[in-house]
Amino acid sequence: MSLFDVPGIRGGAVAAGIKPSGALDLAVLVAEQPLVAAGVFTRNQVAAAPVQVCRERLAASSTVRSVVINAGNANALTGRIGRRHAEAMVRATEQACGGPALVLSTGVIGVPLPMERVLSGIHRAAAAVDDGGTGVADAILTTDTTRKTAVVRCGPYTVGGLAKGSGMIHPNLATMLAVVATDAPIPAPRLRAILARAVDRSFHEITVDGDTSTNDAVLLLARPGDPLPDAVEAEVAAAITEVCRKLAVQIVEDGEGRARILTVEVRGAETDADAARVARSVATSSLVKTALAGGDPNWGRILAAAGNAGVALSEDALSLELGGVPVVVGGQVQDVDPELLTASFAAERVSAVLTLGRGRGRARMLTTDLTHRYVEINAEYTT
Amino acid sequence: MSLFDVPGIRGGAVAAGIKPSGALDLAVLVAEQPLVAAGVFTRNQVAAAPVQVCRERLAASSTVRSVVINAGNANALTGRIGRRHAEAMVRATEQACGGPALVLSTGVIGVPLPMERVLSGIHRAAAAVDDGGTGVADAILTTDTTRKTAVVRCGPYTVGGLAKGSGMIHPNLATMLAVVATDAPIPAPRLRAILARAVDRSFHEITVDGDTSTNDAVLLLARPGDPLPDAVEAEVAAAITEVCRKLAVQIVEDGEGRARILTVEVRGAETDADAARVARSVATSSLVKTALAGGDPNWGRILAAAGNAGVALSEDALSLELGGVPVVVGGQVQDVDPELLTASFAAERVSAVLTLGRGRGRARMLTTDLTHRYVEINAEYTT
Repeated sequence: MSLFDVPGIRGGAVAAGIKPSGALDLAVLVAEQPLVAAGVFTRNQVAAAPVQVCRERLAASSTVRSVVINAGNANALTGRIGRRHAEAMVRATEQACGGPALVLSTGVIGVPLPMERVLSGIHRAAAAVDDGGTGVADAILTTDTTRKTAVVRCGPYTVGGLAKGSGMIHPNLATMLAVVATDAPIPAPRLRAILARAVDRSFHEITVDGDTSTNDAVLLLARPGDPLPDAVEAEVAAAITEVCRKLAVQIVEDGEGRARILTVEVRGAETDADAARVARSVATSSLVKTALAGGDPNWGRILAAAGNAGVALSEDALSLELGGVPVVVGGQVQDVDPELLTASFAAERVSAVLTLGRGRGRARMLTTDLTHRYVEINAEYTT
Repeated sequence: MSLFDVPGIRGGAVAAGIKPSGALDLAVLVAEQPLVAAGVFTRNQVAAAPVQVCRERLAASSTVRSVVINAGNANALTGRIGRRHAEAMVRATEQACGGPALVLSTGVIGVPLPMERVLSGIHRAAAAVDDGGTGVADAILTTDTTRKTAVVRCGPYTVGGLAKGSGMIHPNLATMLAVVATDAPIPAPRLRAILARAVDRSFHEITVDGDTSTNDAVLLLARPGDPLPDAVEAEVAAAITEVCRKLAVQIVEDGEGRARILTVEVRGAETDADAARVARSVATSSLVKTALAGGDPNWGRILAAAGNAGVALSEDALSLELGGVPVVVGGQVQDVDPELLTASFAAERVSAVLTLGRGRGRARMLTTDLTHRYVEINAEYTT
């Protein structure tokens, strides 16, 4: 159940010696034939060298045959040396697996890659390639506690993906990578549009700690060929969105230290963008996230965080439901049974629906709680 | 050493019965003669009723004779009833102390004020007024563990202030209030400009949890009269900024659960506004704040948070000093003695200086660490 269920996609993984633990840490993905590729990358101004290389290569050509991914070292904030290393990884992968190649890295920031080990690892991973991509979903993990994979069938086509990420929550480790592929033929401009839409409705709807890492990247690979009829392509696009959502949910579920997951639905904003700003403000509020950790249905914090989003609100038009219980209706606090209210925040999955009463814009965010364990993981690391 | 060192400002406080604990919770400030007033209020779209009333009254007239402040109930998200209550507090204060009056509230959100107690409290507080403002600095506190006061002398004039706030970190409690007064004569338009500048360089430079509450308010009161010579007024303005900074630092020092305080200096941005965005992104990052809690000099997180500010950066031009130790210079990671680095983050006061190399814009933020105690305080409340 992963990327390797897509016909024609193979992979291999090795322990290259980048992670001090000696765990699997380098993988290659290889396609039988050159594929069409699109990518979405971090908006962080401090983009890692591999992200810079991917951006430039995809701007020049959308054809991709192989991808190399390493964990244990993000190759971020590594200056000109890092840039040369990322390019050397691409060249080695093209020699070993066939090109054009792309490169993704995740792990410690600011430390140059041990290139001898990396280059020898690439050749060994290429030699280890098999149909099932043995070890690949493990080799790309850092602080993750589970591997993240998803497959959706769509008529004669398959969409498969794998991802890593549990929030940018381990010291100096950089977050989220995902590769999604399909054997459906999709031309490059369409593929980019489909990916942008799928990412908006999946990875952009989750947050663990509100930070965008230096290395975030999502790649989408498809078969070249004549475009599908519109209706079929729409189905494939929906399957791609579904795979991205499945992967995104797995990342939130693995959000380190989390006990609860809150879904924030915002409705009735003037625009979808306004709704997204409000949802994001609520989902990243430390006050909301600590209340969630305590199972405390602290609705005042949710409305205060909404009011902080930089979006015009009318207090009289605000309504809020927690776990289906109306707490505020048209700006008026409801007389709710405290036990019912407490129960609404006690489950592992909690929902808040905020209606702004100003239009038809809507958005959704999934967030984790801010727990003792989160602080522990992030504070008790020593360099 | 407080607001009441300013000649002509008196105050009184009582336990009106708003706080369940029976502590002091209502205060009035009364001036001998009507003063000139300016106010800066929360940017939260969900502004509390007293904030709405203050805004409207100050827009209509800058003359103020008295201020009523209650703790224990924020009168926020209380709809039309809350609005009527805030107006009734103003009228009662004008009757008891002389007007025009302003009103500030802090405490629980979404619960109507117990108006009988409040109105009787206002009359009792007015009767208790004395030169020293006995009890006032205590009556305005909520989760604060210390009272916050400051005085600066400036030639023949005095600038004094008091504040409450330890971050909007207690469930449903709304944050920061400050009143600053001077016996120097300053006309209203100048007073507004002086306050805006003072707040930018004090209360806007601190963060505990990145949320702006529904009730944040800073009032500045001055004597009416002919304007001072420019040079003298500039000195008074500097004293006002200094009082605001002293109060702001006391709020951060009382930031609940905090063990360390980090000062983030950003230099070399294209504009001051860009510098402020970068400083704010670093100072509100959960990853930076947990590293600070652990005393972990995790500079990769600081640069990643800077990269997330939505401000264009050049990696080659970035430099970072931690506690005076250069860690990154011109985008190149320095070879720093790990012990020196650890020592730089071990003290109670930690400094990070980030140079962007793009211009002359600069900004500063003070922030607290995100500790176990913070989570405890914010999660373990039950409604």
